[in-house]
Amino acid sequence: MSEQLLKIGLLGRGTVGTAFAELVEQQADEVARATGRRPVISGVLNRSEGDAEEIIAGADLIVELIGGTDPARRYVLAALEAGLPVVSANKQLLSRHGPELWQAVASGGGQLRFEAAVAGVVPVIRVLSESLAGARIDRVHGIVNGTTNFILSEMAASGRGYDAALAAAQQLGFAEADPTEDVSGADAAAKMALLAQLAFGGWVALDDVVYEGIEHLTSEDIAYAKEFGLALKLLGTAERIGEKISVRVHPAFLYSGHPLASINGSFNAVTIESQAITEITLSGPGAGGPQTASAVLGDVVSVITGVPAIEPPQGDAELTTDVHSAFYLHLEVADRPGVLAQVAQLLGEHGVSVKSVAQSGLGDNARLVMITHPVLEADFLAACSSIAELEFIRTQPRAIRVIDEQFIG
Amino acid sequence: MSEQLLKIGLLGRGTVGTAFAELVEQQADEVARATGRRPVISGVLNRSEGDAEEIIAGADLIVELIGGTDPARRYVLAALEAGLPVVSANKQLLSRHGPELWQAVASGGGQLRFEAAVAGVVPVIRVLSESLAGARIDRVHGIVNGTTNFILSEMAASGRGYDAALAAAQQLGFAEADPTEDVSGADAAAKMALLAQLAFGGWVALDDVVYEGIEHLTSEDIAYAKEFGLALKLLGTAERIGEKISVRVHPAFLYSGHPLASINGSFNAVTIESQAITEITLSGPGAGGPQTASAVLGDVVSVITGVPAIEPPQGDAELTTDVHSAFYLHLEVADRPGVLAQVAQLLGEHGVSVKSVAQSGLGDNARLVMITHPVLEADFLAACSSIAELEFIRTQPRAIRVIDEQFIG
Repeated sequence: MSEQLLKIGLLGRGTVGTAFAELVEQQADEVARATGRRPVISGVLNRSEGDAEEIIAGADLIVELIGGTDPARRYVLAALEAGLPVVSANKQLLSRHGPELWQAVASGGGQLRFEAAVAGVVPVIRVLSESLAGARIDRVHGIVNGTTNFILSEMAASGRGYDAALAAAQQLGFAEADPTEDVSGADAAAKMALLAQLAFGGWVALDDVVYEGIEHLTSEDIAYAKEFGLALKLLGTAERIGEKISVRVHPAFLYSGHPLASINGSFNAVTIESQAITEITLSGPGAGGPQTASAVLGDVVSVITGVPAIEPPQGDAELTTDVHSAFYLHLEVADRPGVLAQVAQLLGEHGVSVKSVAQSGLGDNARLVMITHPVLEADFLAACSSIAELEFIRTQPRAIRVIDEQFIG
Repeated sequence: MSEQLLKIGLLGRGTVGTAFAELVEQQADEVARATGRRPVISGVLNRSEGDAEEIIAGADLIVELIGGTDPARRYVLAALEAGLPVVSANKQLLSRHGPELWQAVASGGGQLRFEAAVAGVVPVIRVLSESLAGARIDRVHGIVNGTTNFILSEMAASGRGYDAALAAAQQLGFAEADPTEDVSGADAAAKMALLAQLAFGGWVALDDVVYEGIEHLTSEDIAYAKEFGLALKLLGTAERIGEKISVRVHPAFLYSGHPLASINGSFNAVTIESQAITEITLSGPGAGGPQTASAVLGDVVSVITGVPAIEPPQGDAELTTDVHSAFYLHLEVADRPGVLAQVAQLLGEHGVSVKSVAQSGLGDNARLVMITHPVLEADFLAACSSIAELEFIRTQPRAIRVIDEQFIG
């Protein structure tokens, strides 16, 4: 078979970009053998070298690994409008500017692939976009941020608090010097927006995703989780609720048999649920230069071999925040008669039904820990606000969602 | 978009065939919308109806769900030689007659897809054949037989013995009346042959796979596993050993952090290891009519949308059985001085190094349980044969492989 070159314009040469350039060199023979086309890096853009316009003009395919929205957005738009296939790992760009990117795909006739944007080399984008044609997806659950999963695993394993676990993650290179993007849940929210789009077919913007981070979690919450055989995770959820879609990210207690409960350290995992198929789970390293580079090269090979392009979203998804969840509620209270009764009454008034209560400590250290049955989140939060105003409540009530086997429909 | 029919000839209408026919009807609108082609069943062959030749002549695509080698082999060959795409869930056929099937693919110009043949709806075939283009695969581990995993999970959960757990599996429909194919490891061996072919590119016949079943496992082995936090699984392995390939199936103790250790019940899971990507794990329900049907329909949609065909094997894989493993060795011995010394000496003579020893029981109930360091399997088995001849050994030595975190290279 006569061998043609595939000229790759590489935008961005940080950790992933460098790993990608190395991987291309390493795997070029194998890709050429398997596909008849030999990938070569025809141009590189980074802070100190390269001209984006020239690189795009001289390439058969663009790999965008700059990150962030601008200038990545301008370059990707230019490449797509020129009809080039673009492979990107940029979840920020994709989850903020999807509509104009997909518009450029349509007008230019190129394509846009982004396996590396979610869960690194774990092929969740491919599986959602290709292999579940025979199944209507009901729900996607994901641990899609390795930094927060590392911190929570570290807290669980060592009993240390959030700050110490974060410091350990930073020292080991699992967290950035400024970890806000990760620990706030924003990074996971961007990824869940992309998964929701693939699972349900409509456009979901990052701004539509409700998210909450892990900064407020304490070693006490983790200790509770361990005592009851639960795992505390930063959980992304995208699910159908009637005709609408809910996409959200928040900490959650998972029952020990849940397929995501045993995902530890910096690993990522995604569970796809459907009535027809029950559930499938994909897990693996969520980040790292070589892993992400491998996912990018997988997409490049898919372009070469003609794996069908990812379908653009069909209009905007109709979103809802009317979600039912079970909650763990942790209250620090002054230990005196009638406390439980008053709390229970306020919960009852808001339609919150309690599944279990444990009281511990004495005097100034008294604590009430409750697990509720599933309840409309807005009702629960209203109950919490009322409870916070009771005069015997000593600190802000702490609430964490619970995914309990018994509660699963 | 004007809509064309995709005429599907359905061979076999057992549980999966019936579920598939239903699913096609249910999903036809969605598939037509997404792909422009509407799937319809144009002919059905079962014991009492249909003519294979006619069905093949009138179809755009053949779905083979008969199982077994003949007559499935004849029909599939005829369809492939006629240039039709064939989707099959038949691991027996594929792992016994691969070369002539792939020859027919080449001469007819059709294609052969078989996602449903391994791990049901868990998309391991797709991931191996498509998405890991950027990674050289070193090893595939799999729990690919739901019946045996159910039985072992049941033994672990209940403390019951093999026979009782098998009876429970049969009662619940997780094991056949004649469970030999599953419990002997033969079914898993056929699936591992297919995974090895996709992971490493060469043809592996079922007959080349060394396998061992779970019939000889006892509740004592399971109790040992629980005590040390290990999981006892029927494990399939396909790995590179130098320039050669080893493919085998046997029971194994897995350390608790291994991604397959927490796969319970009738679920299947596959771990794909590569230096570049560390490892990814895919898990989900391994069988069941609707799940398998969903995997088959996924393949049908891949044919319609033009997902590149699965590459035929490139020649025969070069296989080896020179494998190193760590072992658990269980000996029932007469309790007298010098027993351990003699056993240790024989192990040492065969180059087997012991990692830990525990002695329990007294008199006629004395037991020696050892864990070895990794050793060439042939050397270990030779040591076992010598040990079996010692006069104080009361029953046949029992050996089970161990996958221990500390031993992983």
